[in-house]
Parts: sequence; structure tokens; C-alpha cells
Amino acid sequence: MKLVLAIVSNDDSGMVSAALTKEGFAVTKLATTGGFLMAGNTTFIVGTEDDKVDQVISIISKQSSRRTQLVPSATTMDVGMYSSFPVEVTVGGSTIFVLNVDRFEKV
Amino acid sequence: MKLVLAIVSNDDSGMVSAALTKEGFAVTKLATTGGFLMAGNTTFIVGTEDDKVDQVISIISKQSSRRTQLVPSATTMDVGMYSSFPVEVTVGGSTIFVLNVDRFEKV
Amino acid sequence: MKLVLAIVSNDDSGMVSAALTKEGFAVTKLATTGGFLMAGNTTFIVGTEDDKVDQVISIISKQSSRRTQLVPSATTMDVGMYSSFPVEVTVGGSTIFVLNVDRFEKV
Ligand code: NI
Ligand code: NI
Ligand code: NI
Repeated sequence: MKLVLAIVSNDDSGMVSAALTKEGFAVTKLATTGGFLMAGNTTFIVGTEDDKVDQVISIISKQSSRRTQLVPSATTMDVGMYSSFPVEVTVGGSTIFVLNVDRFEKV
Repeated sequence: MKLVLAIVSNDDSGMVSAALTKEGFAVTKLATTGGFLMAGNTTFIVGTEDDKVDQVISIISKQSSRRTQLVPSATTMDVGMYSSFPVEVTVGGSTIFVLNVDRFEKV
Repeated sequence: MKLVLAIVSNDDSGMVSAALTKEGFAVTKLATTGGFLMAGNTTFIVGTEDDKVDQVISIISKQSSRRTQLVPSATTMDVGMYSSFPVEVTVGGSTIFVLNVDRFEKV
């Protein structure tokens, strides 16, 4: 038995949750505090058999990999006009820890 | 040293917390997010000596085992009357993970 | 790879968070529920290489050790006068669990 603890960007948290549940994994989500440094993350706990760890990581990875997006950005120019051009920002991404479970009980 | 991570139904969370505290265990409760899939759970963290893990699991189990309850249920019948009969629902229950602690410090 | 799970007094939570971040550690904070028994704590998750665990514990310890403070205390006396004298209270403190990480992925 393993415990997968995944810190998932809020951008992807809903998709990760839905995909894991659809595949039959029991998911618990922990609320993160509002501090500016860690805003925007959800921490997932998933207990799973050893031989399904790869599947859990694959699901999380598929739904939440760090990626770049083009977003509009505006610059004001000298004479009061402005130019809008796309800039690349990084969104999404997860940090995943797999822990060994010494003992597991469902009561 | 072991770390017990228990996901406890909110039905039983108060009783589990009180019983663990009464027996001298230091309990930390983590807030779960409001998502519909995991509503109704509280996650407990309890650090304990190896030889007290059985006691922790026994306390949690005693206070929160999955069980059925009879609750009233009403059915509307043809002529405007209704019949109230009991149905069995499952309440409570916990999922418990015991993790090995590599190092423990109280500062 | 190790996962450091630290339960830190709210008195010290901001300082611990700032000090860990300044030293380059990625910090996730979990919200604790408002129950009276565990009010006043924040739970930190920090993933780190094995050889930096001492540094993480040292930072947390430095910013949050349990200590006594003198605070004013007032006693009402017989004739309507009162005497204010200092009493010693304990503030701060952390409980730190280090867990072995079976597998680590950043996606
Ligand atoms: Ni196993
Ligand atoms: Ni031990
Ligand atoms: Ni390692």
C-alpha cells in the first residue's frame, strides 16, 4: 500500500480530481491556506495498491503538467496608443510524493 | 515513531478527537476542501510511539466504524396519502494510514 | 528525498514560512480546522533532499522554538485597587515529522 500526496495547481485540481475518481481512486483534498506563497494549490491524498502507483502518477501528470500558455499583454506607448502582444506564462504543474504505508485500515 | 493519518467521517470527527485527546494523544486536524466528492471528512494527524499504534487505531475504530442506520423515508401514494417507512443508510467510517517516521523532533 | 511535515504554532508560522522560502525550499501550508484543541497551528509540508533535512529542521527550530514570555497579569485587590504583575507563559513551538519518500515526481 502506498500513499500518494500530490500538490496540484488549482488550474488543474478539478480535472485531476475527476480523472482519479473516474478511475476508481478514493481522493481526499486538503485545503491550503491563503498565504501568497502557496496560493493556488490543492493537496491531494490518494491511498493505492503498490501496483497502481504508476497509474495514479500518470493520471495526475496527464491532467496537470506544467505548460506554457500565450496570454495577451498590453503595453502603453508614447502617444497614448497601446500595443497588445502575447507573452508566454507557465501554468499548471504538480509535485508528487509517494510514501510507503506501514499499515492500512478501513473501519 | 509512527504517524497515523486518518480520514474520518464528520459524523464521528468530534468523538474521535475527544477520545484521542482524553487518552493523551496530540491530535492535529486538517481542513478538507468543500468539493462534493470529499465533503464530510476530516483528516487527522497523530504522532505516536510504535507500541501505541494499536491503541490509536482501536480508538478511531471504536468511535467511527462504518455502520448502518435506519432513517425514515416517505413515499407518496396514489390517493394523496403517504407512507413513511425506514430505510437503511451507511454512516461513519474511517480510512487509516500508518506511516513510518524517519525522524521526530519537538522544538 | 524526504518529506518534512511540521506542525507550527501560528505565533511562528509566518517567520518559518519566510525563512524556509528565503533558503529556497518549496513550502506548502495546510489549513487546520478551527477546533479548540488544535486552534493556533499551521501544518507545513516541505519536500527536500536527504542532506538538507538538518537545515530544514534547524530553520524551523530557530524560528519556532517553544519559549516562555513574561506577560502582564492584573489582580484585583480588596479595596478596589489592583496590582499588575508579570506571569510566565509558554508560546511557540513545533512538532516535526520526517518521512521517507519512496518516489518523487515533479510534472
Ligand atoms: Ni504496500
Ligand atoms: Ni519508530
Ligand atoms: Ni531520498
